Amino acid sequence: MEENQSRTNYSEKPLRCIVKLGGAAITCKNELEKINEENLGIVSKQLRQAMVNGGGSSNSTDSIKVLGMDWSKRAGGGVSEISINPDEFGDQSELDLSKFIIVHGAGSFGHFQASKSGVHKGGLCNPLVKAGFVATRISVTSLNLEIVRALAREGIPSIGMSPFASGWSTCERNISAADTSQIAKSIDSGFVPVLHGDAVYDDLQDCTILSGDVIIRHLAEVLKPEYVVFLTDVLGVYDRPPTDSNAVLLREIAVDEDGNWSIVAVENMNKQVEITVAAHDTTGGMITKITEAALIAKLGIDVYIVKAATDHSFRALNGEIRGDIPDDWLGTVIRSSKQKQKSS
Amino acid sequence: MEENQSRTNYSEKPLRCIVKLGGAAITCKNELEKINEENLGIVSKQLRQAMVNGGGSSNSTDSIKVLGMDWSKRAGGGVSEISINPDEFGDQSELDLSKFIIVHGAGSFGHFQASKSGVHKGGLCNPLVKAGFVATRISVTSLNLEIVRALAREGIPSIGMSPFASGWSTCERNISAADTSQIAKSIDSGFVPVLHGDAVYDDLQDCTILSGDVIIRHLAEVLKPEYVVFLTDVLGVYDRPPTDSNAVLLREIAVDEDGNWSIVAVENMNKQVEITVAAHDTTGGMITKITEAALIAKLGIDVYIVKAATDHSFRALNGEIRGDIPDDWLGTVIRSSKQKQKSS
Repeated sequence: MEENQSRTNYSEKPLRCIVKLGGAAITCKNELEKINEENLGIVSKQLRQAMVNGGGSSNSTDSIKVLGMDWSKRAGGGVSEISINPDEFGDQSELDLSKFIIVHGAGSFGHFQASKSGVHKGGLCNPLVKAGFVATRISVTSLNLEIVRALAREGIPSIGMSPFASGWSTCERNISAADTSQIAKSIDSGFVPVLHGDAVYDDLQDCTILSGDVIIRHLAEVLKPEYVVFLTDVLGVYDRPPTDSNAVLLREIAVDEDGNWSIVAVENMNKQVEITVAAHDTTGGMITKITEAALIAKLGIDVYIVKAATDHSFRALNGEIRGDIPDDWLGTVIRSSKQKQKSS
Repeated sequence: MEENQSRTNYSEKPLRCIVKLGGAAITCKNELEKINEENLGIVSKQLRQAMVNGGGSSNSTDSIKVLGMDWSKRAGGGVSEISINPDEFGDQSELDLSKFIIVHGAGSFGHFQASKSGVHKGGLCNPLVKAGFVATRISVTSLNLEIVRALAREGIPSIGMSPFASGWSTCERNISAADTSQIAKSIDSGFVPVLHGDAVYDDLQDCTILSGDVIIRHLAEVLKPEYVVFLTDVLGVYDRPPTDSNAVLLREIAVDEDGNWSIVAVENMNKQVEITVAAHDTTGGMITKITEAALIAKLGIDVYIVKAATDHSFRALNGEIRGDIPDDWLGTVIRSSKQKQKSS
């Protein structure tokens, strides 16, 4: 044990990546509180592989036995008491995972409870809002637990951290208090914190919903990851609704120093793209994502918006899109125009 | 809504009670990760009734419809979307629950994971300890979620708050950091925080297990409840193992200003009681409880150790033991000898 302690010093490594597991990608959006187990399983495997690859070691993930860290009895892949062999963990002393933080959305968890009671509009003295606050937190924390367990089964040392319990709060939906010291300490200790969109206190309206996208922007500002990946249920950002057969996937969005963003030209592109994007999504979904992503890119941090559980998402998680965008990669890169000039 | 806001001002009321749900009382100790659903259900009902009774209102709990706050789909009493009627919550605007905090132990959750990996002994650089830390947190947070849900089903606005996520840490197993501001804010907002024994960071040995009993002592010191109730699986503190047919239930333990404790005389009592108590329980169970309870009593706060899900536990939760101990009440009172003199 003494030997292991000197071998690995996690705190010297920078934070590599913050990943958003979009609610639409990991839950079945049209069915109340149903996890998309298939996607979550693939995403967990991709995350582990990306973490192993980036650890500065030449480990091939195929040769390393996955030692699950969900030792619960309940259904869902949990192992029984008998199958835990302490000796096996000794072999993993050199497995030096790179530092990741995971933030997930709610999808079909929490949304019904929040909208039925109006938690996002505040007013905790209203018994319905208070009940909805309780119900929303039960729903999103149960999703968080299942995601932490899925990651732990893949050998990722995942640690659930609820923004509410950590004392995060907002003022008019912008973050007003958010202590990141426990998160920083956890990544330095070799854990992978798993946060989530949550019901929180709001200085002006009592309470509100803090979205995963806003959490990511704040974490990126404070903890400066090398890159950020948003895993969604579509290939990336389109110039109009992806259901429209003429929709064009936007390859790259450049963000200038003032935070203004523009689309890097692609062939056959609709010139009215900004307006079109704004028009098809007023509920905050993709527009919120692009706005938050632009604020992150402005800091000089690349953001990749990509479809979860595909080869494209693995390449993004693995950091393969950080220079020139490969021709055969599908997704949207949002990066600082300054950064772009530097790299070209 | 405006009207409701002026009607209730939770922050003016003091904290009434901190309750420990002992692991042995709410789980089946000899079966891995099994909740004692019957006890948990009765305890939840008793807690709600005690909270309603102490609210300064003359509400009879029988006449108030319980409006559940667990709006999840999953099994375990959750309600379906159709049965949530927002209008019903309007009737509850005057239901003014008194302030409680709940802390639970682990019982058959977490214990296997922690002992198999040695989390309590520290050393996070050891892969087995790190995996055990993850596994322990998964197990105890899943128990926390189920307890929050059980309380919410009884209409208690329960809010899970993990000590680890809240940044609590220890130094040689004593609390070295514990921000209680989010807990204080939550009770002032009318919520019932639900904390639990957890795996946490330790300044000297990397990590350890923070017990629910230590959490309660810290909360009592900072938030000064009127009284504290420990719900266990035996009637109270005995002068020897309760399985011994000659065991005598100790009615009252007096704690002096220096924190020393002595048994208030009962008939037929074994004179060697302190030694006997110490001898039968060296693993920290009842001795830890008495030690922590004595430190609380020293502050002038009564502590009641009582069997969960009995009429005795209801009377303790309801504050009926605060003056003279009723003849027909079974349990152990631990109180300051100074306090005792005042009341007699």
